[in-house]
Amino acid sequence: MPEVLRGAGVSPGVGSGPVRTVAGAVPEPTAGARHAGDAEAEKRIALDALAAVAEDLEARGARAAEIGNKDGQDVLNAQALMARDPGLADGVGAKVEAGVAAPRAVFEAFGVYREMLAGAGEYLAARVTDLDDIRDRAVARLLGLPVPGVPESDEPFVLVARDLAPADTAVLDPSHVLAFVTEEGGPTSHTAIIARTMGVPAVVALPGATALTEGTLVLVDGAAGTVTVGPSAAEVEAARDAAAARASLVAETTGPGATRDGHRVPLLANVGGPKDVDAAVANGAEGVGLYRTEFLFLDRSTPPSDAEQEEAYRAVLDAFPHGRVVVRTLDAGADKPLAFLPPPSEEPNPALGERGLRMLRRHEDVLDAQLAALARAASGRSAKLQVMAPMVTDAEEAAYFAAACGAAGIDHPGVMIEVPAAALRARDLAAEVEFFSLGTNDLTQYTCAADRQIGGLADFQDPWQPAVLDLVAIAASAGVPCGVCGEAAGDPALACVLVGLGVTSLSMGAPSLPLVRAALSRHTLDECRQAAAAARAARAPHAAREAARTHLTALTSLGL
Amino acid sequence: MPEVLRGAGVSPGVGSGPVRTVAGAVPEPTAGARHAGDAEAEKRIALDALAAVAEDLEARGARAAEIGNKDGQDVLNAQALMARDPGLADGVGAKVEAGVAAPRAVFEAFGVYREMLAGAGEYLAARVTDLDDIRDRAVARLLGLPVPGVPESDEPFVLVARDLAPADTAVLDPSHVLAFVTEEGGPTSHTAIIARTMGVPAVVALPGATALTEGTLVLVDGAAGTVTVGPSAAEVEAARDAAAARASLVAETTGPGATRDGHRVPLLANVGGPKDVDAAVANGAEGVGLYRTEFLFLDRSTPPSDAEQEEAYRAVLDAFPHGRVVVRTLDAGADKPLAFLPPPSEEPNPALGERGLRMLRRHEDVLDAQLAALARAASGRSAKLQVMAPMVTDAEEAAYFAAACGAAGIDHPGVMIEVPAAALRARDLAAEVEFFSLGTNDLTQYTCAADRQIGGLADFQDPWQPAVLDLVAIAASAGVPCGVCGEAAGDPALACVLVGLGVTSLSMGAPSLPLVRAALSRHTLDECRQAAAAARAARAPHAAREAARTHLTALTSLGL
Repeated sequence: MPEVLRGAGVSPGVGSGPVRTVAGAVPEPTAGARHAGDAEAEKRIALDALAAVAEDLEARGARAAEIGNKDGQDVLNAQALMARDPGLADGVGAKVEAGVAAPRAVFEAFGVYREMLAGAGEYLAARVTDLDDIRDRAVARLLGLPVPGVPESDEPFVLVARDLAPADTAVLDPSHVLAFVTEEGGPTSHTAIIARTMGVPAVVALPGATALTEGTLVLVDGAAGTVTVGPSAAEVEAARDAAAARASLVAETTGPGATRDGHRVPLLANVGGPKDVDAAVANGAEGVGLYRTEFLFLDRSTPPSDAEQEEAYRAVLDAFPHGRVVVRTLDAGADKPLAFLPPPSEEPNPALGERGLRMLRRHEDVLDAQLAALARAASGRSAKLQVMAPMVTDAEEAAYFAAACGAAGIDHPGVMIEVPAAALRARDLAAEVEFFSLGTNDLTQYTCAADRQIGGLADFQDPWQPAVLDLVAIAASAGVPCGVCGEAAGDPALACVLVGLGVTSLSMGAPSLPLVRAALSRHTLDECRQAAAAARAARAPHAAREAARTHLTALTSLGL
Repeated sequence: MPEVLRGAGVSPGVGSGPVRTVAGAVPEPTAGARHAGDAEAEKRIALDALAAVAEDLEARGARAAEIGNKDGQDVLNAQALMARDPGLADGVGAKVEAGVAAPRAVFEAFGVYREMLAGAGEYLAARVTDLDDIRDRAVARLLGLPVPGVPESDEPFVLVARDLAPADTAVLDPSHVLAFVTEEGGPTSHTAIIARTMGVPAVVALPGATALTEGTLVLVDGAAGTVTVGPSAAEVEAARDAAAARASLVAETTGPGATRDGHRVPLLANVGGPKDVDAAVANGAEGVGLYRTEFLFLDRSTPPSDAEQEEAYRAVLDAFPHGRVVVRTLDAGADKPLAFLPPPSEEPNPALGERGLRMLRRHEDVLDAQLAALARAASGRSAKLQVMAPMVTDAEEAAYFAAACGAAGIDHPGVMIEVPAAALRARDLAAEVEFFSLGTNDLTQYTCAADRQIGGLADFQDPWQPAVLDLVAIAASAGVPCGVCGEAAGDPALACVLVGLGVTSLSMGAPSLPLVRAALSRHTLDECRQAAAAARAARAPHAAREAARTHLTALTSLGL
């Protein structure tokens, strides 16, 4: 009887294959470690390791480019260049000649660069992580340890990790990853988000995940939240058949989003640039509910030109003729620091700092240039442009943003509702702007005072928290259209609950659209309302989900 | 006509005297700076500067001890010892001999120690700030710049700064500080809190404060929020007379806290250990509403013994026979890291991390030992012990804490309400515990997603934010007694509003008690309710305050 492990299913579907584990941290080589005496031989060992790391990074870069991730290749090639730096080689050589063993020599030689970078201001300091990654790869080779990060494999595999960071997933080839399984994380963890974006099944918060033996065959059911260890061929086949049957059921539902009784709920896509437009269109998005514009501003020392911005906005507007495109102005700060917009002071808690609109008010030229470019991009287009500000806290800020939009000739200003105060006082904000978009990830983070980046607080990061549902209900009843563009919108059961709470549109990663469309089309608005009331009557996220599901009876037929 | 500057009054009273400014940051001496050639002379200059810094620190330590701040003296003496470290002197000497100019040589020699400390784990890393302070003092002397930190003065003065940090105020002699004026900060900034604790007038958020010329005579009115530059003798006298008249009015109100129509509102003190008991009793506290227990756990590598804890708790219980003492269990984490309870992982936003009860659940032995010591301390005492957990988010956590209290034989478990989710779902939590205590500082921080430590976000840290008042109203109507122990309780106008919202007791720094008692005794419960409704109908903190005051007409007679 194969063992069945249970975690939290965060991305539906079934995947089966051998386990490949992301290796953990590389230890610091012992201080004072000496080599046997042959400095030349030891130097050769050290420099060979660095050269091997550089080659590996370049090979990974080439693969990243093959799967369309040109940015990933740039980062990897820059890392390879650092690994080949002659100054670094000299530093290692000098230490080895002084008797230091190769692993320690490499470790110490990197230390000098590390310090220089760390002291060179915000932007370069962020590159310390890249440097540490090169160092750890070289040290791992020298110590005979597994190289940290995502494993390389020619065969498709089930990726198992304690948790996954953005750096781990940047170079993943979607065709090679059958499923994700992590020991930590919650429904809004990076793993969950990337899995849904890639359309790959995922189970998170699975105790003992990292103890799974490398190469073991597992069957991952991302809807049920189970991992079967050593399944029989019949089991795998049965699970795949069931998943295929559900997928064809889902594919039957097409057209605009609506409940079974015809209550319209536009289903929109979250995009991070023109590159995401194809997937949005392919999955039947009726428009864009969240156009993140940070990609235009990242990793550069000056703002993008007016023409560059206009072109990037127009590319998305043109993809949805007569549709709707909701653009979020630059959301700088917190976990997204920009080289040319440093925080005004060192922030002990960046998530509670001068981010979003708070930052833009300090740099009105950046805001005004972005709004002007948006107005030009929308001019003469059939798509309806809506623009919203991130991280708005009160009515005064909403009024400020509406005025800035008005001055730029933009007609439909809106605000993100992601700060609890903004949700609580939604009526005040509704007097200033034309629409809301709920960012449920940040809203949950602040409402429960639980950092999205801390794995141990997964329960408090769950948008099913009844307190969060209370705030959604307040915001959705404030008298202006209120969409949701957080991860919550992509959870089919929660999407129905949100509609029951009064939410008027749902925006999500494109791969989630078909399942949400199918779930919504199988329930009436009244069932959604009953599910919402049941969820709010619960006292904990799991209980809220269970209570809602008793009113969402058609989810089971979709394998949810 | 003297110039009148306007800021935010955060601690009432009038103070007049010469301006003394806290000097700003010391710049890094230019890299590569060389001395003229006489290495021996240059070395002497550098070492003399370090010796002078050490002497100054020891002298400050002696003065700190004179004003009863023994802990302050220990820190300062430890710093002096570092300044005299022979290894440091050798390092400076070697650099000077290599041609480096004295200021740069000192700067670089400290760098070596800095790095060692920074790499030596949580506890020692926190000492880096102390080390930087010594370095900056020595470099300032060598560059001929003002020494950073609070100025030394034999005469009383008005302390002016951009903002004040705890390190700045540790060695302040209250008898020498006539008033505080800062350019940044808000009602819950460190400056505001320390001013109210010391009973010194303070005006914060005053544009141009740091441009005031050293030695200029100013008149600070902490109730009106004004700073008069170069007042006439008559103006100073008139302001002092008015303040004295108000003070005697305030002193006339004694006895238990109540509204004018006899609605009882116990007025309690916040204490940080037995040392604060005298001031609480002297100001007529009816008990303790917040006993912070962190002082027992700070700066040590093991938890305090059972006997040590029991004694510290009993000392406060014995000071309030037949009174009430509300003890908060250890609130570790965030800005209060403990050597023996490190956070389980590096936290990018400690305020949103595993702090308070979240941390205690990982260390149940610490929680259980504290509860057992509390139960023993209360045994046979007439004071009523109530125990509450910090940073509680949901009903499950409340139930966990109540069970832990029950197992320890503690009858009246409660929870702090400082997370928005806990306020929103107060009814769920009320089913598990017997009382609430609202921590308005953290509640405001999370509700507005604005770090209390960031000066630029003062408006979002104001407990008059209508969204915060909404949450107070929800929590206060959940069916269990609901006190307030944040800074909001010590603001006389806001205290009346809180009572109008349904809050059942108020706990504050002892110096705030007389004014709050006087304000409350001059208004009826109905007036408080009208003030509360008016405040909630406003859209911004300043408007809320103004609206409330139209119903709190007796405040003017108290100079508020």
